[in-house]
Amino acid sequence: MSNATIPRRAVFCVSDHTGVTVEALARSILARFEDVDWVYLVRSFVDTDAKAATVAKEIVRIGGRLDDRPIVFTTLINKNLEKYVDSADALVLNTFSAFLPALSEELGSLPSRDIGSFHGMSDSKGYQRRLDAVDFTLSTDDGVNVHHYDRANVVVIGVSRCGKTPTCLYLAMHYGVWAANYPLTEEDLVSPRLSSALAGHIDRLYGLTIDPVRLHQIRQQRRPDSPYASLDRCRSDVERAERLFKTIGMTPTDTTATSVEEISARIVKSMKLGDRPKV
Amino acid sequence: MSNATIPRRAVFCVSDHTGVTVEALARSILARFEDVDWVYLVRSFVDTDAKAATVAKEIVRIGGRLDDRPIVFTTLINKNLEKYVDSADALVLNTFSAFLPALSEELGSLPSRDIGSFHGMSDSKGYQRRLDAVDFTLSTDDGVNVHHYDRANVVVIGVSRCGKTPTCLYLAMHYGVWAANYPLTEEDLVSPRLSSALAGHIDRLYGLTIDPVRLHQIRQQRRPDSPYASLDRCRSDVERAERLFKTIGMTPTDTTATSVEEISARIVKSMKLGDRPKV
Repeated sequence: MSNATIPRRAVFCVSDHTGVTVEALARSILARFEDVDWVYLVRSFVDTDAKAATVAKEIVRIGGRLDDRPIVFTTLINKNLEKYVDSADALVLNTFSAFLPALSEELGSLPSRDIGSFHGMSDSKGYQRRLDAVDFTLSTDDGVNVHHYDRANVVVIGVSRCGKTPTCLYLAMHYGVWAANYPLTEEDLVSPRLSSALAGHIDRLYGLTIDPVRLHQIRQQRRPDSPYASLDRCRSDVERAERLFKTIGMTPTDTTATSVEEISARIVKSMKLGDRPKV
Repeated sequence: MSNATIPRRAVFCVSDHTGVTVEALARSILARFEDVDWVYLVRSFVDTDAKAATVAKEIVRIGGRLDDRPIVFTTLINKNLEKYVDSADALVLNTFSAFLPALSEELGSLPSRDIGSFHGMSDSKGYQRRLDAVDFTLSTDDGVNVHHYDRANVVVIGVSRCGKTPTCLYLAMHYGVWAANYPLTEEDLVSPRLSSALAGHIDRLYGLTIDPVRLHQIRQQRRPDSPYASLDRCRSDVERAERLFKTIGMTPTDTTATSVEEISARIVKSMKLGDRPKV
């Protein structure tokens, strides 16, 4: 046992592909078990006997160093590969096997077990749409090319450095949403109405706001001790932006407490069904 | 029954958070069952009785329109909310419940069932690292600010429009990797050696290549019928880039057949352990 009051425990996420899904699943489930210091180890592209054998050895070795035997989440669908992992002293949870009996019974068929043949998230049409969306988002970042807003699914607005760009990039990359963003500058904030660039697209605007103290920290990183980064200026910018949102009847999302992933999911949910991209 | 030879079947992905993980899991599992036209419907932020009741009604309604009853993947951890979904005529698979008995036994404790309190992927330190990585990647996109390469975890190189930018953005956004990218231009391609901007960072270079015909299609979109987009030019660029990769002993990854997610996972896997970010 280590001296720490909270035990450390290894979590292996083993996949024959990127491991992104199995890691996300493991984290979402294990976050519910408090009082354990989970140490995540992703093992991707485990697609041969040799690689599976290596991972199995590693599970034993690292398990021996920590406080308890590891937890292993796998998405391996090949039974031979799974055998190696199963042989290690660990709690092995296979996300594929868990649902297989119920699904096979419901569908009256057995799944394909070929390695690497199917990966639902990257079908070619949806994939190309996502790459095109990233192109569009980069070409309309930070108020550039406002004349392309008629092709945008959403135009994210807010003061400088409140989180518009990462939100738009995630929307594009993950959902294939053509997401432009527009910074509310001094000119916008002193005006009693929306700029002409935005006024014609009010149905696709989405507002972001942020805690002024947090904004001050972020702007300090970019331009230390500038008027732009001062707390007074941040307070004033946020206050005036929120007044503008109120004028146009919009409730902005606060990026201080909400992750890019969550804001993106909320934006997609709020988009009219017809606009919602099919990825 | 519809007239189509392949039956259409609804897959609901129900989450009290973004639904990103449960959708990815459902897609990865169901892609293994061929001969079904899966129609994915993500229902995010289902965190009240009213919302759960609405989703349950929708499952019944949409199930009635398609060929068979829906499959429902849920990550709901609140038993009250789960009851609504369970009441619908559907195959309901709860990703949380599936692993709960084994985990509770192994850990000797019960999970927290509070709604929205834990989301492992967005702990504040890892989250901020990812946002900072996106900033760095944007500031070093397309060969800009090469003097910042000493701060990069990886510098992705390849000919113009071969997929460097989306790869770097995914690396930054998902893994928190500081990923710069550098286009191999005419000057680089005619030179017998690496440019001085790259030569000092050979241990962190990662090469991408692409099928010349695909590259021609992509460049045509950007600058139609330009010399830059011509098939001859694309062939020559790719050939010379691959010769350069060979000179420096590098095996590039082909973006024609490999998704941004997969390339990123491979890059992270290949990075030296000390450099690998802890997200």
